Amino acid sequence: MKAEIIAVGSELLLGQISNTNARFISTQLAEIGLDVYYHTVVGDNADRLVESIKIAEKRADLIIFTGGLGPTKDDLTKETIAKHLGLSLVLDNHAIIYIEDFFKRMGRKMTDNNKKQALVLEGSTVLENKHGMAPGMLLTTESHSYMLLPGPPKEMEPMFQFEAKPLLPKLLLDENVIMSHVIRFYGIGEAELETEVQDLLDNQTNPTLAPLASDGEVTLRLTAKSNSEDEAWKKIEELQAEILNRVGKFVYGYNNDSLPSKLREILIENDLTISAAESMTAGLFQSELAAVPGMGEALVGGMITYTEDVKIKQLGVDAAIIEKYSVVSSECAEQMALKVKEKFQTDIGVGITGAAGPDGHGGQPAGTIWIGIALGDLKPVTYKLNLSGLRNTNRIRTVKFTIYYLIRLLREQTLSKI
Amino acid sequence: MKAEIIAVGSELLLGQISNTNARFISTQLAEIGLDVYYHTVVGDNADRLVESIKIAEKRADLIIFTGGLGPTKDDLTKETIAKHLGLSLVLDNHAIIYIEDFFKRMGRKMTDNNKKQALVLEGSTVLENKHGMAPGMLLTTESHSYMLLPGPPKEMEPMFQFEAKPLLPKLLLDENVIMSHVIRFYGIGEAELETEVQDLLDNQTNPTLAPLASDGEVTLRLTAKSNSEDEAWKKIEELQAEILNRVGKFVYGYNNDSLPSKLREILIENDLTISAAESMTAGLFQSELAAVPGMGEALVGGMITYTEDVKIKQLGVDAAIIEKYSVVSSECAEQMALKVKEKFQTDIGVGITGAAGPDGHGGQPAGTIWIGIALGDLKPVTYKLNLSGLRNTNRIRTVKFTIYYLIRLLREQTLSKI
Repeated sequence: MKAEIIAVGSELLLGQISNTNARFISTQLAEIGLDVYYHTVVGDNADRLVESIKIAEKRADLIIFTGGLGPTKDDLTKETIAKHLGLSLVLDNHAIIYIEDFFKRMGRKMTDNNKKQALVLEGSTVLENKHGMAPGMLLTTESHSYMLLPGPPKEMEPMFQFEAKPLLPKLLLDENVIMSHVIRFYGIGEAELETEVQDLLDNQTNPTLAPLASDGEVTLRLTAKSNSEDEAWKKIEELQAEILNRVGKFVYGYNNDSLPSKLREILIENDLTISAAESMTAGLFQSELAAVPGMGEALVGGMITYTEDVKIKQLGVDAAIIEKYSVVSSECAEQMALKVKEKFQTDIGVGITGAAGPDGHGGQPAGTIWIGIALGDLKPVTYKLNLSGLRNTNRIRTVKFTIYYLIRLLREQTLSKI
Repeated sequence: MKAEIIAVGSELLLGQISNTNARFISTQLAEIGLDVYYHTVVGDNADRLVESIKIAEKRADLIIFTGGLGPTKDDLTKETIAKHLGLSLVLDNHAIIYIEDFFKRMGRKMTDNNKKQALVLEGSTVLENKHGMAPGMLLTTESHSYMLLPGPPKEMEPMFQFEAKPLLPKLLLDENVIMSHVIRFYGIGEAELETEVQDLLDNQTNPTLAPLASDGEVTLRLTAKSNSEDEAWKKIEELQAEILNRVGKFVYGYNNDSLPSKLREILIENDLTISAAESMTAGLFQSELAAVPGMGEALVGGMITYTEDVKIKQLGVDAAIIEKYSVVSSECAEQMALKVKEKFQTDIGVGITGAAGPDGHGGQPAGTIWIGIALGDLKPVTYKLNLSGLRNTNRIRTVKFTIYYLIRLLREQTLSKI
């Protein structure tokens, strides 16, 4: 069973946008074990679209179209497919209703022209668009299945995930339920993680196991197929237990967790406040925390101590310590953490100092970073990073490592229950 | 004259990465007026790649391949094309030299295996890879041109832009020189900018004029074709003068300028130091400045005053002002700017306070933001934003607006020469 994705839109051929839809759908299809051999992008041109369909029909069973379902004369996907297959477009009452609903929600008046949006391929299953007007469609003929999805990712992605994808197992596979579960890691490289679970990767069948790395984070996606949700979850739980057994200490969360959201959860649960003194990250750590809504309950504020003078005069770091150990040192990071905690009267103080690059700093080469964490009355802990990236990659990694170390430390030191 | 882009790589079909290469190349081809009718993505499979080439040969004159030029057995683009066209792969001495150079720069030893990377299609023009090992190629037969580029964007983009693109005018067009120039705007929406230059957009021929909007910034790209660089630049200058005449006050820079790099340039040129007190941006403003190397000469540091208590006790904002006007007010932003400037002894002080969302704050609805700028002994200036985005979009926009207002203010107030 093979699938091909055809994206329709001249804006793609002009390079105005990337074809992220093909990526999204491919990831989802890979999860359920459906092979994708080709992606095609074609402009808003009926003749060239028909040519693309004819080619795809020779090499795929399921053809997924994105784009060209809008109300303007440029939008010709459903019209072209209808003509190609010799089908009519018919008004769908369900689509009319949710298009009306959409206009109500937007507080705008629906015109007759918008009713055209409710025209669908005769005999197709209509896929509801909860974030826009154009309905999607799934049409199955004797030889092929044709899926039509809207172009804007914010409409297409939820439609594919929640309306279209659940129809695929019945259409294409033996099982009825597909369940995915993501385990999130930090502080371990992709290669190292893969080595630890190599036998599981080699022998994967059901659940499938897919590693993915981006921006220093690694995830494992477990996808199980089964006839019931209970059975699928049981398969996932079994494999997950084996994975946690091997590399559990690098797990910071699951599914939609992010490092900052996880940290916020732990801070709020334990009624802890936090402040930070940042040098090379210059506010990025606190900004990443504040990106999570509701962080105000835990994040009090802090200082950006970019120069040595500010570290001493504003924050109160001992000049003798900087003199003796330099600004890029365990001792300086520890002092920064202690002083900001004291000054801002929080439960946790964080100090970050280092050489982001491209040049060295404080007598240390680019990429040398010290993170200090002062937690309650415990002796402050410091961590050293030796990063090899460009300036801003190093700054982002430093923030992620800081959050990861905080999560680990809070779990170990104060939160045996987590 | 038509082009087709074939991206080779199973990772694209698995959805592990997006085909950003096709977007990049399409933008560049659109600039020089070359039509792209199709993008294709195919996996690391010789048979399916040949099928894709045969299809592309029927519908395009120039076929551009990305990916599959690496040293592993999965990489088969040049081998497949050689076989398809009945050509040999020959060792290219120039490529050997820069592959050796690359290894020297990386401080690694070159093995015999790496020499295979220097094999190129016989009769092709070799395109140097300044950021990796795999050379690119441009081969012209009687009927078609075939361009082979590496897959990693950081290798492909500079190779296309600086090695391959300059060869295209001679190959495909009448003119010899193509010159592009980007004008960067902030504080004006895409629709508003387009309205102001609508007649120029409608009547564009040479130079072409392409607007592009992303993350609240808008750019206009002017591209001229001509027989000499002088002539091309003269065409660009003429059109640019007309554009600046209409919307010059929203221009913050050109080509590779960014808002923070432009601000740094002005600060350094005028020997000015800056500090900031940030509430809703929580360090993002200072972090964005610090992302530019060498910002340490201007950015001293500052405070993150996330809570009201910190604003009063640490920064020294007058409690009565907050009581009277709330933390989200012109008065509070002004005080924050003044106090941080005074405390950190800088030439410029910036205060940012607002309701990022999703909830309101300080009696103001989400999206209400006040920015205060205290410059030298001048009376502080405040700016109000009413943003309608999500929390983090609002935070990023606020930082960009702050930098834009700073650039404008510095130009107006102190720097008549700029």
